[in-house]
Amino acid sequence: MKKNLAEFIGTFSLVLFGCGAAGISGITSTGPVGIGLLGISFAFGLSVVVMAYAIGPISGCHINPAITIAMLVAGKIKPRPAVGYIIAQFMGATLAAGVLYVIQSGAPGFMMTEWALGSNGWGPGYLGAYSMKSAFITETVMTFLFILVIFKTTATWGNPTMAGLAIGLTLVLIHLVAIPITGTSVNPARSLGPALFAGGKAMEQLWLFLIAPVLGGILAAIVWKGVFENAVEISVSK
Amino acid sequence: MKKNLAEFIGTFSLVLFGCGAAGISGITSTGPVGIGLLGISFAFGLSVVVMAYAIGPISGCHINPAITIAMLVAGKIKPRPAVGYIIAQFMGATLAAGVLYVIQSGAPGFMMTEWALGSNGWGPGYLGAYSMKSAFITETVMTFLFILVIFKTTATWGNPTMAGLAIGLTLVLIHLVAIPITGTSVNPARSLGPALFAGGKAMEQLWLFLIAPVLGGILAAIVWKGVFENAVEISVSK
Amino acid sequence: MKKNLAEFIGTFSLVLFGCGAAGISGITSTGPVGIGLLGISFAFGLSVVVMAYAIGPISGCHINPAITIAMLVAGKIKPRPAVGYIIAQFMGATLAAGVLYVIQSGAPGFMMTEWALGSNGWGPGYLGAYSMKSAFITETVMTFLFILVIFKTTATWGNPTMAGLAIGLTLVLIHLVAIPITGTSVNPARSLGPALFAGGKAMEQLWLFLIAPVLGGILAAIVWKGVFENAVEISVSK
Amino acid sequence: MKKNLAEFIGTFSLVLFGCGAAGISGITSTGPVGIGLLGISFAFGLSVVVMAYAIGPISGCHINPAITIAMLVAGKIKPRPAVGYIIAQFMGATLAAGVLYVIQSGAPGFMMTEWALGSNGWGPGYLGAYSMKSAFITETVMTFLFILVIFKTTATWGNPTMAGLAIGLTLVLIHLVAIPITGTSVNPARSLGPALFAGGKAMEQLWLFLIAPVLGGILAAIVWKGVFENAVEISVSK
Repeated sequence: MKKNLAEFIGTFSLVLFGCGAAGISGITSTGPVGIGLLGISFAFGLSVVVMAYAIGPISGCHINPAITIAMLVAGKIKPRPAVGYIIAQFMGATLAAGVLYVIQSGAPGFMMTEWALGSNGWGPGYLGAYSMKSAFITETVMTFLFILVIFKTTATWGNPTMAGLAIGLTLVLIHLVAIPITGTSVNPARSLGPALFAGGKAMEQLWLFLIAPVLGGILAAIVWKGVFENAVEISVSK
Repeated sequence: MKKNLAEFIGTFSLVLFGCGAAGISGITSTGPVGIGLLGISFAFGLSVVVMAYAIGPISGCHINPAITIAMLVAGKIKPRPAVGYIIAQFMGATLAAGVLYVIQSGAPGFMMTEWALGSNGWGPGYLGAYSMKSAFITETVMTFLFILVIFKTTATWGNPTMAGLAIGLTLVLIHLVAIPITGTSVNPARSLGPALFAGGKAMEQLWLFLIAPVLGGILAAIVWKGVFENAVEISVSK
Repeated sequence: MKKNLAEFIGTFSLVLFGCGAAGISGITSTGPVGIGLLGISFAFGLSVVVMAYAIGPISGCHINPAITIAMLVAGKIKPRPAVGYIIAQFMGATLAAGVLYVIQSGAPGFMMTEWALGSNGWGPGYLGAYSMKSAFITETVMTFLFILVIFKTTATWGNPTMAGLAIGLTLVLIHLVAIPITGTSVNPARSLGPALFAGGKAMEQLWLFLIAPVLGGILAAIVWKGVFENAVEISVSK
Repeated sequence: MKKNLAEFIGTFSLVLFGCGAAGISGITSTGPVGIGLLGISFAFGLSVVVMAYAIGPISGCHINPAITIAMLVAGKIKPRPAVGYIIAQFMGATLAAGVLYVIQSGAPGFMMTEWALGSNGWGPGYLGAYSMKSAFITETVMTFLFILVIFKTTATWGNPTMAGLAIGLTLVLIHLVAIPITGTSVNPARSLGPALFAGGKAMEQLWLFLIAPVLGGILAAIVWKGVFENAVEISVSK
């Protein structure tokens, strides 16, 4: 139960900080220049860094259904707790999107748009207007690399002090590339929360952000199990 | 006494670096582009990172009355030293605002404005012009998360090497979201210092930055004591 | 074999994140401001940070032929595995450039240009239009410093926890200086991948990015062996 | 001798990366937006992070005459090696400025200006055009805090893994505030190198950047010796 609560708070924080930074501080309005794509990238990635050290010791800090499913495929979590984790993640993301909605509605002239509250998407009208094919490849490849890094840095031969930093910085890197393409999801919960409030295009395109990250995560689990898991022995005995 | 002096220097540094970066380098004037909301966020958060490693071993590096009060509620500091800490924090923040006033008055055309020296505020004329309700919710929720992260990363099951980094990065994240709303306080001392010199609107609106962060901190202490403090046993015995 | 696969994935990630960030998010189009030279610098450098912790325990995380050759000169890798590493690095970089080509071709109005996909170059039409002499000096000096830092931080007297961070941040620093001059290579594989797809000027100028980084790396190996390798004894006995 | 060579290479790197980033990448010309004040701040500060882990185990990584003098006042280095360190620092900074001159002269339309190559300065025509009084106070106070952090994080009660990071991030913070005022020195060697090549105003104003940082460093040594050095006992026995 405490593990589920940790996942709930962790995913809540990820969406509050990440989507909040994008929606509230991303674009320059008055005063200092807005945080831009670089700041948004740091907001998502550093949220994972922070949560890895805060709730990692409690729940492992998945805060992402694609990670939980990859861990399930790799045999590192059992089906029953995995379901609890995923429900907690979707609930935390949804509450965060709700809090952001209340806060942002206090800005003068606030209006809900097709992809409001940091929703993911693609195609005409969405940032770089990339094609669905580009979006799908990007989300799959990026989640694959993200979760492969997670498996590697948390393996017995990893550096436990730096694993949380390395994992979060990988999410920074993914955002540095992919925001113009999809807004960067690699996390079904992070996509669902804002989409529930934004509706419209964000809901129509939600399916891609449920399927592609999970596909990338499953591929990572397979490559990990098939190739790298026993690499520790090679390294130690070299 | 040395602990109070450490809190004094720590809070002095936080306000000198954070409010100084905002007031002096935030906006582009001539030459390279100013640091913007991203740079201001790093200035506040990295100040906490640095001070955590510099004065953490002496005083615990609260440098924030909301943290000291939350620690008091959680039974981690006694009332008498807590009062000493809080006085030192307010004095350090005030001296920093004074030094910034002297330095900034050496710029051509410097004028004190309603929210000068990095003062916090809200409403028409203040950055994103958010409502008081948005400001209050933001300061309370953000301080709640900030201090919950502090409790978790400094618990017996935390990583002592990375705790200071994780806590400071949380303050970066909070600023990445909240600057357009309130300028981001989550720290009554950080708000008081500049307001004393700026006067006007900054003093009128100071009450919110005394109450909301303390409220968020007390909530964090309650959730910590009630739910997570014994999580270590769960983790260890899993 | 697993070591070569690790080098393949590591170099793939470096080019996907670094060149991807440059080509996809570097310039502001619509919405939030692009990541600019600062964000591109972080993309390349943080890729090395992440990969150092992910694949460092498997292959040592060279992901750069200039590093592998410097390690060969310093006697830290044998010729036969060095050849395997270098082939894996070139293949990983080439696949990444291909994936970026597929993704970027899904953007409206995408066109291949003379230095597309984050290719390195110099002279009229390339960023700061620096001379070939400036380009050559920059690539040689920067690779020299980069690989000297690698030798020092991974020496017996280094800090194993922080070595990966220090090495990756050195690559951030090199990019903060050198992007306007050459786009920053210091890595023949990182240059070859994009050039194969971009053709034109990128292929014509590729020779400099094969020679100068390797020259800098060999100089670093010589200085390391001749001056610093035994410095540990001095330090310990001081 | 190896210690002096380490100081030489360290100061060379600091000026090459810091002043190079400022002069070459600071301002947007064509392509992606320049690194601005934020990127310049990271360039100087991360240079110290990297060098702390690379040469720290050899020489202690002062790479700044103000630090060497403060260490002398605090009794942590003897006069004779201190002189060797300071000469090596000035030589490294000067060579770096020379290399930057050669590289930058390969840019189309390059011209030496009054404060070229990242020189420090103040007054009309220099960035924020701050007064000499503001410049002097800023350099003194900032060096005082910088060197106090160095004493504290490298004390017996410090965290040896994180000290280098904390010290370098302090230099980031100092630059986030002080670039518009003086370009940020807090280091006589970093000021001398570029001034020797720039001449003019940079040489005329050099005296302030020799005196103020040293004054700040001596004050830090006095406060450290008088107040904090024995704080470890308090902490341990609390």
